[in-house]
Amino acid sequence: MIYFDNAATTRPYPEVLATYTEIASKIWGNPSSLHRLGNQAHRFLEASRKQVADLLGKDPQEIVFTSGGTEADNWIIKGVAFEKQNFGRHILISAVEHPAVAESAQWLVGQGFEVEQIPVDKTGQVDLERFAAQIRPDTILVSVMAVNNEIGRIQPIPEMARILEAWPKVSLHVDAVQALGKLDVSLFLPERVDFASFSAHKFHGLRGAGFAYLKKGKRLSPLLTGGGQEGERRSTTENLAGIGAMAKALRLSMEEREFVQERLAAIKSSLLQELAKYEDVELFSDLDGHSDNILTFGIKGVRGEVLLHALEAYDIFVSTTSACSAKAGKPAGTLIAMGIPGNRASSAVRLSFSRENTMAQVEQFLTTFKLIYQQTRKVR
Amino acid sequence: MIYFDNAATTRPYPEVLATYTEIASKIWGNPSSLHRLGNQAHRFLEASRKQVADLLGKDPQEIVFTSGGTEADNWIIKGVAFEKQNFGRHILISAVEHPAVAESAQWLVGQGFEVEQIPVDKTGQVDLERFAAQIRPDTILVSVMAVNNEIGRIQPIPEMARILEAWPKVSLHVDAVQALGKLDVSLFLPERVDFASFSAHKFHGLRGAGFAYLKKGKRLSPLLTGGGQEGERRSTTENLAGIGAMAKALRLSMEEREFVQERLAAIKSSLLQELAKYEDVELFSDLDGHSDNILTFGIKGVRGEVLLHALEAYDIFVSTTSACSAKAGKPAGTLIAMGIPGNRASSAVRLSFSRENTMAQVEQFLTTFKLIYQQTRKVR
Repeated sequence: MIYFDNAATTRPYPEVLATYTEIASKIWGNPSSLHRLGNQAHRFLEASRKQVADLLGKDPQEIVFTSGGTEADNWIIKGVAFEKQNFGRHILISAVEHPAVAESAQWLVGQGFEVEQIPVDKTGQVDLERFAAQIRPDTILVSVMAVNNEIGRIQPIPEMARILEAWPKVSLHVDAVQALGKLDVSLFLPERVDFASFSAHKFHGLRGAGFAYLKKGKRLSPLLTGGGQEGERRSTTENLAGIGAMAKALRLSMEEREFVQERLAAIKSSLLQELAKYEDVELFSDLDGHSDNILTFGIKGVRGEVLLHALEAYDIFVSTTSACSAKAGKPAGTLIAMGIPGNRASSAVRLSFSRENTMAQVEQFLTTFKLIYQQTRKVR
Repeated sequence: MIYFDNAATTRPYPEVLATYTEIASKIWGNPSSLHRLGNQAHRFLEASRKQVADLLGKDPQEIVFTSGGTEADNWIIKGVAFEKQNFGRHILISAVEHPAVAESAQWLVGQGFEVEQIPVDKTGQVDLERFAAQIRPDTILVSVMAVNNEIGRIQPIPEMARILEAWPKVSLHVDAVQALGKLDVSLFLPERVDFASFSAHKFHGLRGAGFAYLKKGKRLSPLLTGGGQEGERRSTTENLAGIGAMAKALRLSMEEREFVQERLAAIKSSLLQELAKYEDVELFSDLDGHSDNILTFGIKGVRGEVLLHALEAYDIFVSTTSACSAKAGKPAGTLIAMGIPGNRASSAVRLSFSRENTMAQVEQFLTTFKLIYQQTRKVR
């Protein structure tokens, strides 16, 4: 089996799963309980928070645990909007955001907010000049993803942060779900960033855990109110085992990041080189300015879904675009925003790599792809 | 160790934890992925949904998975409000709701909704006559808990449902977090109920999983928007392992419910009988009309926290009131709503039982309690 769909989800580190089991069976007290079992759980929770904060070079108070990236995105987008609604109602998001951001912003339109998209160029990168011109006195929030989930394009967060230095009251949110463990932290969490979202299962942690970065002093209206956990910012009995497992997964992935990314760069580079040789292959990702772990391409005239299932017959697992939009049958929104016509965009398949992929798999993939390419000649 | 704090959280069934590990290591595909690994995960997800629905006698479409009870409560309270805001803005909640409901309603007050409390009598039960008189043409939602988390009082859901038959447009939400696995389903999910909330870790499942019951045809605005999972009702990559584990925990706890509850009734009955013999003990729970697994009492003049820590010294773990309000140092809101003065309410400790508790523990508890009672004589 070749699993090239790591941007959809990753296989958990076995040692992370072991940590989960250990915590769930031994430290199962409610961190809010006043007795010793509660204190033990509370101390473990705070140790996990410190570990995550340390790995990002941030303060533990700035880390709030959530159920995943979607909750973090929803909370931040809606929370900033409700918190600042009396100061302004204008929100800017890039044209290539994940639905967790885009749909949250869309929901706010129904509540009387104005949402404007920042256009991207033909490589999928945010147009900085246009962005600078879009900011208004009533803009309350800018939201941009660090690494695009459909083509791997890296957004110029440090440059956007620099532009926003002239607008200190505008909140800057970074959806860093596809960036953590892949890019250097400075590329997605420069000082000007106020809020960011993360998801454990994208870095070999477990489903059901994620976290939000909230810069000290920045307030936002809670999404989950109740028992007052997480410093009154996010209520619910804490998923301690999932959180502890996530902290461990983050440590492991940060420790091996450079080593793994070097291999993934080699994998992507040789795949790009070989795929470029096919006349009817269109490359939607590049090496430069893109994350090493995502490569999106298509065979002209062949629907992505057809290529996906053809590869699947050889036990090779890829995605059409994002897992989320795949099931809904939506075309790759990022490619459309880049100005690629629908018929070409619908040919896209996404290969996404992780620590588990090897150069041997690349050889095997290329051999298989050659066969499939020949077979699809008649439909092209 | 005697763990009498099962209303705060329960120890997971060991076989449920084993199920979690099995799923997380073997069925780790993203249910939204189009390939075989995704299909396998999707099929497992739907099998879990059917299992939960069957156990409640409901339709699988009516079950939506969440991160826990707090998310389900927040979603339903806010989701009904946003969905129906053009039809009315009046919301009724009982005076003894969990903060996940009460704080969500309070948050809506800031968004222009009107929230009114349904008073309770001196036993903590909703006043049905007052309730009937409070419903107005602009009432959009009634929210009530099935079993009170602080004293175990069972609310008259079937009677409230009957009153609401004359008001078909008013949504009825039941917070059933403390009821599932303890009461017969008909007591908290009669046909008139539109929405209900549940949490896995209250019935020996794992933290980070819960679900909402949404009656067929009933709509509410989503809390988590994004990839469109759960039929566009609750987005986020599904916590499949937590969900599968929850389905199993629910099956196990429903299977042994009658057997376990009989034992818990005997435990509670003998504790009530013995505690009543102490002159300065005040009982806040009763057998009749209360869940068998919660017993709240206090020693007059002794703060609940003092009694809690005295018991802890003997490895007996109890709660002051709810775990959530304990840490915040808030008095037991339910007792205050029942008309009990603050100084008496602050003496309360809550014993909450589960399948793991035995009559032998009752003996041990009573022996210890006798000692502590004598020691506290000087402070009374």
